[in-house]
Amino acid sequence: MSIITLLTDFGIEDEYVGIMKGVILSINPSAVIVDITHHISPQDIMDAAYRIKSSYKYFPEKTVHLIVVDPGVGSARPIIAAQIEGHYLLAPDNGILTPLLDDGDIDNVVYVENSEYFLDSVSRTFHGRDIFAPVAAHISKGLGIMNLGRPANIKELVRFSVAKPFVSDNGELAGIIISIDHFGNLITNIDYAVFKKFRDTFCCGKEIDFIVGSKSVTGLSESYSSVKSGMPLAITGSRGYLEIAVNCGSAKDFFDICKYDKVIIRNGDELKDYGSNCTIM
Amino acid sequence: MSIITLLTDFGIEDEYVGIMKGVILSINPSAVIVDITHHISPQDIMDAAYRIKSSYKYFPEKTVHLIVVDPGVGSARPIIAAQIEGHYLLAPDNGILTPLLDDGDIDNVVYVENSEYFLDSVSRTFHGRDIFAPVAAHISKGLGIMNLGRPANIKELVRFSVAKPFVSDNGELAGIIISIDHFGNLITNIDYAVFKKFRDTFCCGKEIDFIVGSKSVTGLSESYSSVKSGMPLAITGSRGYLEIAVNCGSAKDFFDICKYDKVIIRNGDELKDYGSNCTIM
Amino acid sequence: MSIITLLTDFGIEDEYVGIMKGVILSINPSAVIVDITHHISPQDIMDAAYRIKSSYKYFPEKTVHLIVVDPGVGSARPIIAAQIEGHYLLAPDNGILTPLLDDGDIDNVVYVENSEYFLDSVSRTFHGRDIFAPVAAHISKGLGIMNLGRPANIKELVRFSVAKPFVSDNGELAGIIISIDHFGNLITNIDYAVFKKFRDTFCCGKEIDFIVGSKSVTGLSESYSSVKSGMPLAITGSRGYLEIAVNCGSAKDFFDICKYDKVIIRNGDELKDYGSNCTIM
Repeated sequence: MSIITLLTDFGIEDEYVGIMKGVILSINPSAVIVDITHHISPQDIMDAAYRIKSSYKYFPEKTVHLIVVDPGVGSARPIIAAQIEGHYLLAPDNGILTPLLDDGDIDNVVYVENSEYFLDSVSRTFHGRDIFAPVAAHISKGLGIMNLGRPANIKELVRFSVAKPFVSDNGELAGIIISIDHFGNLITNIDYAVFKKFRDTFCCGKEIDFIVGSKSVTGLSESYSSVKSGMPLAITGSRGYLEIAVNCGSAKDFFDICKYDKVIIRNGDELKDYGSNCTIM
Repeated sequence: MSIITLLTDFGIEDEYVGIMKGVILSINPSAVIVDITHHISPQDIMDAAYRIKSSYKYFPEKTVHLIVVDPGVGSARPIIAAQIEGHYLLAPDNGILTPLLDDGDIDNVVYVENSEYFLDSVSRTFHGRDIFAPVAAHISKGLGIMNLGRPANIKELVRFSVAKPFVSDNGELAGIIISIDHFGNLITNIDYAVFKKFRDTFCCGKEIDFIVGSKSVTGLSESYSSVKSGMPLAITGSRGYLEIAVNCGSAKDFFDICKYDKVIIRNGDELKDYGSNCTIM
Repeated sequence: MSIITLLTDFGIEDEYVGIMKGVILSINPSAVIVDITHHISPQDIMDAAYRIKSSYKYFPEKTVHLIVVDPGVGSARPIIAAQIEGHYLLAPDNGILTPLLDDGDIDNVVYVENSEYFLDSVSRTFHGRDIFAPVAAHISKGLGIMNLGRPANIKELVRFSVAKPFVSDNGELAGIIISIDHFGNLITNIDYAVFKKFRDTFCCGKEIDFIVGSKSVTGLSESYSSVKSGMPLAITGSRGYLEIAVNCGSAKDFFDICKYDKVIIRNGDELKDYGSNCTIM
């Protein structure tokens, strides 16, 4: 078995994703192709980056993860192939692997340059079809990525700056909403471990407030239904990050909030000046 | 071959469905996974219930049907596995199997409790990934559902009350719209057999009116194109229930109607008081 | 391996596509099913026609392409099966194969009439489930299409009139937008070869303007990122047709334009009366 996952911003109204699957199956008829999502907002590299980080490890080793969110298609931007914990990644070198690179688990990165593994004719507008799909199919058949092109220096790969939660001067933990899911759950960039360290250090066992826009939630809940239907809660989500949710409802609507807006976590007590501005972790 | 179908309210914008597929393929690499739909309105248990009832029997026997519309995720609500005509069902015990239970074809229900078949770490927010997907994969590999936990008493399972069509005092057949599909077709809860019995009993061979909101349709059509483009019709739909449709158009828009609104079927003649309020069937 | 592709206007909110897959797998358990798209606008035969033309050739030979955009379902309109360059097509006889028929590559067309290969009970509203899916499954298992029914005369098949680009009296090349994709790219009906011939004949090496609504773009770009982010461009798209796009943006929004609107291509110089109204090609 050889699995290839697809993560793109192509949507599913057009024939583009189907064509990529046709190209893959023409080269590797036994490939099993799984859609992660094709609904990344057009060109939203950061969103795609978090989604591939959240999902790849649930697949068997040797899975090839093909990520095409590629505003620079047809330009000189390179395409890279990489290994991570026995998996393969194939993506444009545009920062999309930043969270995985930051984790330090990626190794063996190469530039994808060997046109022997591309379609015969390469367009300037659809590398998903002409380069990504056939190369992924060849990797899934056992081609070592070292055959694709010269090794890349991991330090020279494009990265975006990752917003990290930090403790502000007045002893609050400040994060942002990095994703809003289909249910309207607000997924923050605050890892549970970071939250726990903050709580243990700054909060003296007191109740904690989560401030989102002009409203707030008190305390961390164990499950969505820990509060009444329609009421908000904070919870550790399935990615391991704090989420703000509404039981049987949409936190996005409840808090009237947008992606990249702030979330402030603080001791429910009056605020004190802790004199720090350190990043936890 | 082992087939697993997925029916959820997860949408497809997020990585959630892809992750479930990764978990399944990690346990059963030869599973064939088919999406029924992921577009159930969030937490709309009744809608999911009718859709699984409409679809499961078109799959081969031994197919595992995984249904995750689960507002109670992370709470004490049980998960159940059941057998129905050689198929397997895996769902929360929240009423989602009601129409199938009412049909009386379900047997061998068990509570899914044996964590041996779950992921090692079970979150409180994503049982689709941590429990449903791995358990479905194990069933698809041949695990008997009796190994999952203690038997459930079918009579004690959660059910919702099913709206049934009835004949009113004045001899009209009253039903509701239980589903509106992608084309805007209005699918009623009136089975053709119920309609036929009503027609034979009350309508004396006269033409029949279908009243939807403030408009009506006369007669049952044989196909959408039995009427002119843009005109409404009543027809026996592919589920075997009466549908109100518009040829090359949307009945939802034409009638300006919502799910769960009423549909009245009556003899086109002047109305008589039949003095009955019986439920047919 | 046997591949079946699906191209429909069914959407993915309902259980319809899943049911078709269940029917296929019940007959051919080893079929690999690929969605091209289910988001054709309801009954938009022309759009489906261009999408299947763009995609079929990227699949391996012997793939069965099932196309269900079928406003005449349940009426007397025939269903046809055809061969094209080693592939199989299965579609209603409603014009949906027009561009492929015009290319002259289709042969061996038959009417699908042999109910031996249908489901036992055929509804009047869902031939996708009752006829198309089981027949596709049988073809994918090796059934020759000649077994499906009597041969059709290719000249008698339904066709729609295809809008072709033409050179107007004043020496402009006039085309239309035949498709707008997920990114808002405007895909014209002007093949690059037609454009090149126009340019070589009429434009004397001068810069060329592409006029879309009340705005225009000058020159043909090599890639989206040849212009600044947010700026418009003309480019040869992945289907081989001219496209109007916006780098990191939506041309649909930029030009405020609709499907089937005009695109005019002309010499950037003052216009001359070339006295012709010929269709190139």
